[in-house]
Amino acid sequence: MNRPDIRRLPKRSDPQEAQAKLLEAVKSKKFSTEKVALAEALGRPLAKDATSNINIPAYDKTFIDGYAINPEDTVGASTSKSVAFKVIGKLFPADYPTIAEVTSGEAIYVACGAPIPKGAASTVKVEETRLNGDKIEIIREIKRGEGIIPLGDDVKQGAMLLKQGQVLRPQDIGLLASIGMSEAEVYPKPKIAILSGGDELIKQYRKDPSKIANNYALVVAGLASELGATAEVKGIMPDALDEVQAKIGKALDDADIVVTIGGTSVGMKDFVPDAINSLGEPGVVVQGISLRPGAVSGFGIVEGKPVVMLPGHIGSCIAGFYLFVAPLICVYNGLERDGLQPCLTAELSEAVDSGPQFRFLLLHLKRSRDKLLAEPVEGGSSALTTIVKSNGYSIIPPHANLAKGSIVEVYLFGKLELAQIS
Amino acid sequence: MNRPDIRRLPKRSDPQEAQAKLLEAVKSKKFSTEKVALAEALGRPLAKDATSNINIPAYDKTFIDGYAINPEDTVGASTSKSVAFKVIGKLFPADYPTIAEVTSGEAIYVACGAPIPKGAASTVKVEETRLNGDKIEIIREIKRGEGIIPLGDDVKQGAMLLKQGQVLRPQDIGLLASIGMSEAEVYPKPKIAILSGGDELIKQYRKDPSKIANNYALVVAGLASELGATAEVKGIMPDALDEVQAKIGKALDDADIVVTIGGTSVGMKDFVPDAINSLGEPGVVVQGISLRPGAVSGFGIVEGKPVVMLPGHIGSCIAGFYLFVAPLICVYNGLERDGLQPCLTAELSEAVDSGPQFRFLLLHLKRSRDKLLAEPVEGGSSALTTIVKSNGYSIIPPHANLAKGSIVEVYLFGKLELAQIS
Repeated sequence: MNRPDIRRLPKRSDPQEAQAKLLEAVKSKKFSTEKVALAEALGRPLAKDATSNINIPAYDKTFIDGYAINPEDTVGASTSKSVAFKVIGKLFPADYPTIAEVTSGEAIYVACGAPIPKGAASTVKVEETRLNGDKIEIIREIKRGEGIIPLGDDVKQGAMLLKQGQVLRPQDIGLLASIGMSEAEVYPKPKIAILSGGDELIKQYRKDPSKIANNYALVVAGLASELGATAEVKGIMPDALDEVQAKIGKALDDADIVVTIGGTSVGMKDFVPDAINSLGEPGVVVQGISLRPGAVSGFGIVEGKPVVMLPGHIGSCIAGFYLFVAPLICVYNGLERDGLQPCLTAELSEAVDSGPQFRFLLLHLKRSRDKLLAEPVEGGSSALTTIVKSNGYSIIPPHANLAKGSIVEVYLFGKLELAQIS
Repeated sequence: MNRPDIRRLPKRSDPQEAQAKLLEAVKSKKFSTEKVALAEALGRPLAKDATSNINIPAYDKTFIDGYAINPEDTVGASTSKSVAFKVIGKLFPADYPTIAEVTSGEAIYVACGAPIPKGAASTVKVEETRLNGDKIEIIREIKRGEGIIPLGDDVKQGAMLLKQGQVLRPQDIGLLASIGMSEAEVYPKPKIAILSGGDELIKQYRKDPSKIANNYALVVAGLASELGATAEVKGIMPDALDEVQAKIGKALDDADIVVTIGGTSVGMKDFVPDAINSLGEPGVVVQGISLRPGAVSGFGIVEGKPVVMLPGHIGSCIAGFYLFVAPLICVYNGLERDGLQPCLTAELSEAVDSGPQFRFLLLHLKRSRDKLLAEPVEGGSSALTTIVKSNGYSIIPPHANLAKGSIVEVYLFGKLELAQIS
């Protein structure tokens, strides 16, 4: 090991510039798309605009249970002067196409969704009619088109249905199905391999294999998969340069993105930056950013793939995750850097000073009467309970003194946070 | 078929009373819990309070890379009067438990996370020291406890970690793992079987089997599964009473909840209510509610299991889903009726009159400067595109005239809606 035991961090990068560098490095990639069954596409961003090659409905149909008639026959009808129609048949949705026809004074029973017979141009609800033997009576003038959904009313042939980037919701899936699609075109979810350092986790695990030692990896995997990645916890990197190299190298073989937790600083056993540099060009691009917490985050590029270095303290780890990993997941999914992150505007519940660096401010967003309130969360950045108390964050620029009541953009950690905002 | 061809709907129920009846019918059930691996518990509500049986951290440790010292040795230290310490060893996180000890004038290098040696009560960052051979120099007074996370600082033994009902987020999973749990106790997701009526869907499918005919079932399945159910599309009920009976009966064998789409009104081929009544007591409990759209929604109870009848028009179907199915999913997950539904407060962008019934008002919630705006969505209730344009809804009481700017509670359709609120 030809390096001094005690080193100092290089000059810290501006976090926004560092993020831009990372995204620049991957944006040149040619991402190919894949087709997946509609049910599996739920929650994934559409890779291409979807347009309709058909009209929906494909023909005029009734949207009520009632009678199809010629509305001209009802001119002058009123409660005191009803008009009678002879019911000459029944039509159901499955009867399309139909040759049925009404002439003056005739009606056909139409069940909701049935095609409109020739000669008819309106339908009247059963409840609005009086049945009298084989006749019905109508007691008001019926407008042309009443009770009918005309051809193409929902979707016109050639219409744009959904735009590229739309996160497919259940109703979007239903719409794609309605134009005959059984698959949706999406970007493959990026595969993220997560490695944790170091020996103490191994020791902890050996002492009691039932315990999950590298729980921060579980947190990162959960955040990544909820956002739109396939995340795999790849175990622990022992405290030795060659083993760290081997683990990262192997992870790079399978994954699109490698994320390491811990071992990124300048401590004696912080081997991650050296390992990345040894694996390929350009190696480490950013080590250390002007963000508190999160300062010892960074990233490298090896064979065109990003290796993100997250700090070992959970608060710093989360900050690094949202600065580097979350935007990567969005970009690999064909979106802008924050295209998958829920963001809301809220009032700060107390004054906040950022200090000389950018501040990753942990927040608890809550509803307060008619507005949203963002409460800064107290607690050490190495305490997981601090993150558990939070549901989102803001990044505050350096030297900012935000008064109580200031408006901030709050990024929620993920979609799961919203269900229980109260 | 001993019933008249043309019938009328029974008196419509108040939607809130109808919902309360449904939940009352299932609340008496004894729901058993299940244990699932932590990674699978993501997004599910915890069934029992979780308390910690350990302290985290389990011992005093350093949260910086630096030197452990006795802070009393630094009394009087300043830039002009540095104090020197002899570095007598190194400690790493894996070295716990340790017998290492410092005496006056001695320091031990401690990597972030390492235990604190006996005799030391503070740690000083590497960057704050000057290394001079085997000595370091410190140039300020160090406070007792600086750089140290004391035993139990994150979690105290016996502390409540997470409450029953908490939807487990990645950080919650991490916290449970940190106290040695590998599984979480949750309620089994309710199994929902979805049946669509009727012959026209079968015909459509036979014409082109590649087309997904019952796409509304896909929408309902997506909404249910995103909320917290296991939803299965169980195919189409032909337009014949005995076949509808058989399909619902079979679905009831496996599922906790059966949901039918279409065939619930008083049309000639609306066999669902009769089928439910024929299957067991009490059969249909509510048929028809005072909600627009959604009026022909209802439910029955067969052998203690709910059978929810959703209307065939998509707008009405969605209204019935949120009135009956969504609350059921919450209750089966051990929560209150809206415990899983994202809800935000917003300003109405235009005046809204509810009319004589409750109104299921489709909304598009969006951010507008510092506030949330709820725009009523135009479009027919039978058009899926209307639902695609919406991301949530409000239920407005009868005879309400809401002015533009009124504050409404907006329930989002689901978590997926939030990512792209802009």
